[in-house]
Amino acid sequence: MTDHIVSSYDVELDTLRSKIAEMGGIAEKMLGDATMALVRRDAALAQAVIAVDERLDALQHDVEERAVLTIAKRQPMAVDLREIVSAIRVAGDIERVGDLAKNTAKRVVAISNEMQPQKIVGGVQHMSDLVQAQLKDVLDAYAQKDTARALDVWQRDDRIDALYTSIFRELLTYMMEDPRNISFCTHLLFLAKNIERIGDHTTNVAETIHYLVTGKPLAAERPKSDESSFTTVPVAGQQ
Amino acid sequence: MTDHIVSSYDVELDTLRSKIAEMGGIAEKMLGDATMALVRRDAALAQAVIAVDERLDALQHDVEERAVLTIAKRQPMAVDLREIVSAIRVAGDIERVGDLAKNTAKRVVAISNEMQPQKIVGGVQHMSDLVQAQLKDVLDAYAQKDTARALDVWQRDDRIDALYTSIFRELLTYMMEDPRNISFCTHLLFLAKNIERIGDHTTNVAETIHYLVTGKPLAAERPKSDESSFTTVPVAGQQ
Repeated sequence: MTDHIVSSYDVELDTLRSKIAEMGGIAEKMLGDATMALVRRDAALAQAVIAVDERLDALQHDVEERAVLTIAKRQPMAVDLREIVSAIRVAGDIERVGDLAKNTAKRVVAISNEMQPQKIVGGVQHMSDLVQAQLKDVLDAYAQKDTARALDVWQRDDRIDALYTSIFRELLTYMMEDPRNISFCTHLLFLAKNIERIGDHTTNVAETIHYLVTGKPLAAERPKSDESSFTTVPVAGQQ
Repeated sequence: MTDHIVSSYDVELDTLRSKIAEMGGIAEKMLGDATMALVRRDAALAQAVIAVDERLDALQHDVEERAVLTIAKRQPMAVDLREIVSAIRVAGDIERVGDLAKNTAKRVVAISNEMQPQKIVGGVQHMSDLVQAQLKDVLDAYAQKDTARALDVWQRDDRIDALYTSIFRELLTYMMEDPRNISFCTHLLFLAKNIERIGDHTTNVAETIHYLVTGKPLAAERPKSDESSFTTVPVAGQQ
C-alpha cells in the first residue's frame, strides 16, 4: 500500500516536471521567434508568437491545479513539499516569460513597416541572445536540480541589466537626434524592457532551484545593474 | 478533537486574511505616495516608497509559506482549498503591485529635477486615481467575498486601458514636438505603463475572488482596450 502511494506520488511529480519542461520549450521558442520577427520585421511570425501564448497559460493553470491537489492528497513534507511549491513557482515564472514574449511580438507587429537602420535593433538582438541562453540554462538547471548552474545564471543577469541600461541610453539618443525615430524607438524601449524582465524571471527560477535543493533562500542580494529607472540623457545643447 | 482542529484551522485562515489585508494597505499607500511624489516632484517621498517594498516582499513570503503548510497539514478540500490557493494568488498580485509602485517611485526620483509643464503629468495622475480606486475596491471585495463588486472592478479596467493608450499617444506627441521632452516623457511612459499594469493586477484579484466564491474561472474574455502595443504616432510632415 505504501509502495503504491509512493509510486503514484512519483507519477504525479513526473507529470508536473514534464509539463514544466513543455512550458519551458514553448517559452524559449516564443522569445527566439519574437526576436527573429523583430530582426526580419516579420509580422506573420510575430502573430504566431502571440497565438501560442494561450497554450502556455493553459499549461500553467494545469500545473497549479495538479500541484495543489497533490499537496492536499499526499501531505508531502520537507523536500517533497518544496518540490511541489517549486513547480508552482517555476510554472508561474515561465508563464510570465510567455506574456512578455507575447507583448514583445505585439510591438514587432506595430513597427514591422518601419524601415529604421538595422543597427538600432542590434543591441536588442544581442541582449535577447544573452537572455535566451539564460533561459535555456536555467531550465536545464531546474530539470537536473543543478544549483551550481542555477547560481551561474543568477550572477550573469547582471550583464543583461547593464546592457539594458546602455540600450536605454542609446535609444533615447536616437530619439533626440531625429523625431522620426521616436515612435519606433519607444516600441524598442518597451520591447527591450520586456526582454530584460524575462532575464529577471530566469533569476527567479534560479532562486527557486536553490530553495528546492537546499531548503534555504539565496541569502545574498543579487547584483543589480539595471540603472535605467534612474537614467536620464542630457539633451544636446542643454546642461 | 475535531473542534480543536477546525478552530485552529480557522485561526490559520484568519492569519492569512489579516496578513493580506496588511499587504493591501501597504500597496495602496505605495501607489498613492508614488503618484503624489510624481505630482510634487518629491524625491524624498519617492525614496520612502522604494524603502517600504521590502516589507511587502517579506509578507508575501510569509503568506505563501503559511498557506502551503496549512494545505499540507489540514488537507482542505473544495472551498477551503480554494480559500488558501486564493490567498497565495492574491498575495502574489499585491506583491507585484508593490514592485510596480516601487519602480514608479524610482522613475519619479529620475525626473524630480525636470521642470516640464504640469499638464504632461495630469493624464498619468488621473489614471493613477482610477487605478487606486480599483485597488481599494478589489481589496474590499476580497475581504468581503463580494463577487458583484469584483466583477465591477474587472469590467472597469477597460477604461484604464483606454486611458493608457491615449496617454501613450499624447506623450509620443510631446516628444516629437520638442526633443527636450524626450527623457522626461520616456520615464512618464514607463511610469504610466507600470500603473496600467497595476490595473491588470486588480483584475487578476477580481478573477481570484470569482474563483474563490464560485469555484469556477471567470468564463468570458475580459474586454481589452490597451492598444498601445500596436500604436504608432505619425511624425508631423510624414505620412
